[in-house]
Amino acid sequence: MFFLSAVALTGVTCFAQANQTAPKEDFKPSATTQQGQQYPQVNSEGRVRVSILAPQALKVQLDIGAVKYDLVKDDKGVWTGDCAPQDEGFHYYQLNIDGASVPDPGSLYFYGASRWGSGIEIPAKDQDFYALKDVPHGQLRENQYFSKTTNSVRRVYIYTPPGYDKDNAKRYPVLYLQHGMGENETGWGNQGHTNLIMDNLIAEGKALPFIIVMENSSVNFPRGDRPGAAPAGNADSLKRRAGGSPMGGFDFAGQFQKILLNDLIPYIESNYRVIADQPHRAMAGLSMGGMQTRLITLANLDKFSQIGMFSGGSISMDDINKAPDFKDKVKLLFVSYGSRELENRKMFSGGPFGGDPQVNSDALKAAGINVHFYISQQTAHEWQSWRRSLYEFASLVFKN
Amino acid sequence: MFFLSAVALTGVTCFAQANQTAPKEDFKPSATTQQGQQYPQVNSEGRVRVSILAPQALKVQLDIGAVKYDLVKDDKGVWTGDCAPQDEGFHYYQLNIDGASVPDPGSLYFYGASRWGSGIEIPAKDQDFYALKDVPHGQLRENQYFSKTTNSVRRVYIYTPPGYDKDNAKRYPVLYLQHGMGENETGWGNQGHTNLIMDNLIAEGKALPFIIVMENSSVNFPRGDRPGAAPAGNADSLKRRAGGSPMGGFDFAGQFQKILLNDLIPYIESNYRVIADQPHRAMAGLSMGGMQTRLITLANLDKFSQIGMFSGGSISMDDINKAPDFKDKVKLLFVSYGSRELENRKMFSGGPFGGDPQVNSDALKAAGINVHFYISQQTAHEWQSWRRSLYEFASLVFKN
Repeated sequence: MFFLSAVALTGVTCFAQANQTAPKEDFKPSATTQQGQQYPQVNSEGRVRVSILAPQALKVQLDIGAVKYDLVKDDKGVWTGDCAPQDEGFHYYQLNIDGASVPDPGSLYFYGASRWGSGIEIPAKDQDFYALKDVPHGQLRENQYFSKTTNSVRRVYIYTPPGYDKDNAKRYPVLYLQHGMGENETGWGNQGHTNLIMDNLIAEGKALPFIIVMENSSVNFPRGDRPGAAPAGNADSLKRRAGGSPMGGFDFAGQFQKILLNDLIPYIESNYRVIADQPHRAMAGLSMGGMQTRLITLANLDKFSQIGMFSGGSISMDDINKAPDFKDKVKLLFVSYGSRELENRKMFSGGPFGGDPQVNSDALKAAGINVHFYISQQTAHEWQSWRRSLYEFASLVFKN
Repeated sequence: MFFLSAVALTGVTCFAQANQTAPKEDFKPSATTQQGQQYPQVNSEGRVRVSILAPQALKVQLDIGAVKYDLVKDDKGVWTGDCAPQDEGFHYYQLNIDGASVPDPGSLYFYGASRWGSGIEIPAKDQDFYALKDVPHGQLRENQYFSKTTNSVRRVYIYTPPGYDKDNAKRYPVLYLQHGMGENETGWGNQGHTNLIMDNLIAEGKALPFIIVMENSSVNFPRGDRPGAAPAGNADSLKRRAGGSPMGGFDFAGQFQKILLNDLIPYIESNYRVIADQPHRAMAGLSMGGMQTRLITLANLDKFSQIGMFSGGSISMDDINKAPDFKDKVKLLFVSYGSRELENRKMFSGGPFGGDPQVNSDALKAAGINVHFYISQQTAHEWQSWRRSLYEFASLVFKN
């Protein structure tokens, strides 16, 4: 990764063929390559190779990890090239063709960076925990419900564990799980593999079965979809509205807290067999979703007993001192980061992250709070950190 | 549409600004425009306007309806242009930048033409029937199940009607609903708005509540995903496998019939509260899915009582004569086409479509069979025909 960092720091355009060592020629289509397409490909070093026919183009680049790599044109007009090795896991990327930033037509598309665009999966050594296996599977359900707060029908995804439809007497704990800035309610299902992580954990007896609710906490009201506006005309308007970007009239947690407490939790509790009490209600989130989790749970300790913050700050003794019920009410606090995020601890002094997460967690543990601090090795502020965080959190939650 | 057709016939490139009349300047973002994006837009004539920054490009085109329209560059390097009026409803399209065919970064993406790519919604006068409304909503559920036929875990989407989770004693009829060639199990939910069509029909008391099962009938075994291969490593591999294109070892209906009868129907009947008998089991499909419906239902009249074929052929007296049980067993045969498809009736002489659908339907009706022939006005072999066909079919099915 040194090479990548050096390039990023100096701002020099990186030529694919100038990578200091020749790439290992074991490239294969990725799990995120569209069925029937040969590219994008990934090799065992974590390099991504893209290829596109663009006979009249003057310049084509692969834009990944904040670096643009020039591709090379062959005599048929096909441009091909690689990037430096990427971390294991999932990354957003795009192509640039004569100055136009566009999705790679060969990739699957994901919502992130406030857009639907290309994503690439670099096989991870620990990918077995989110592998598709022949185990009992839960369901990922797309629901529509009416929010009084936004005066509109909103979309929410709900994971129900295997067997949910079999025993109608059984009730389940519930986790409200939030995405990051520029992402939406599809992130934990698509990029996060939430359903597969849970199916595998439950099959191995490592997690209790519980329900997961994934709504959109990037609440704003773009393009006329304001409170008071009539519900829009079709599902795609809904998807646009539900996919709200964090710009415009963005309200960090207040608006989503109203949706969550006044509309979503009541909807879930009257439509799903959840155990509707504080001991069986959790909230977690990644990045912005972690910070929202912190704000909303600290202000509502009577409603949440289990808290997860993934790359989204931590809780300090100062917070605890302002919330004297914390120790009684909170049965699990889980805080995590990717190891690469911790390389520069300056980010934790001041700002929105609320102090060094390790220092904070150690202090809370000394004060008798059930806190777990987890570090995802060799990953950054990206989905592999959050898949692992969900795996660890799900193994602990509702067991106390 | 004459202008469009003439251009298509002569193969002349159509310059957007050369459209014979100036476009009406009431363009607005479409329902399929990504939230936060200004383009693509649609005007009240059904013209699509796209716009993309591509400062170094030499030529940028909008490729829609088999015509490529040149865009025009402004002094900031932004290329913009329109196409001729398109039919109401949904169309696939793409951009072409210096010879590279790519998705429009401003649009939502849909699976069709054997790829994930851009789609555009032209508002339709009758769009209310698939509008998102504040009515009781069903659920669209993503399920994984194991298929012995393919020896792999497959993805299937299941629509459950409003109230399904409320009354655990109630059982429902079930419709197996197939997509067209180059599409997959996501088509009826994304492009088709199946859940909204059903929610609205049920809310108005126009359809009985029933379950809809949407699997992938473009069965082949690309890139090593062959029978006998171990289930692949993650959900994206699953998506790729489930999205099988109709190339390679494509088997028109036999392989899917095995999956349907031996794996999928048993899975549904043991995991959903369906009425598991012939009178309460329907099959329908669009285009290739309609032809598969014809082959599979005619060969299995003991299993299906209701048949829907949307732009996918019809059933003739010859067929009936070869299947003497037909009149006793089949309670509803629904056949439909877009009116533009019927403009050239030559397509029905010979070939896979099995004779003129109107002539066939009239003959069956005269023979005492409950056949409905529906024509979607001013639409072609596209999703607006199939949304309307589902609406009509769902209003009739399981009522006999």
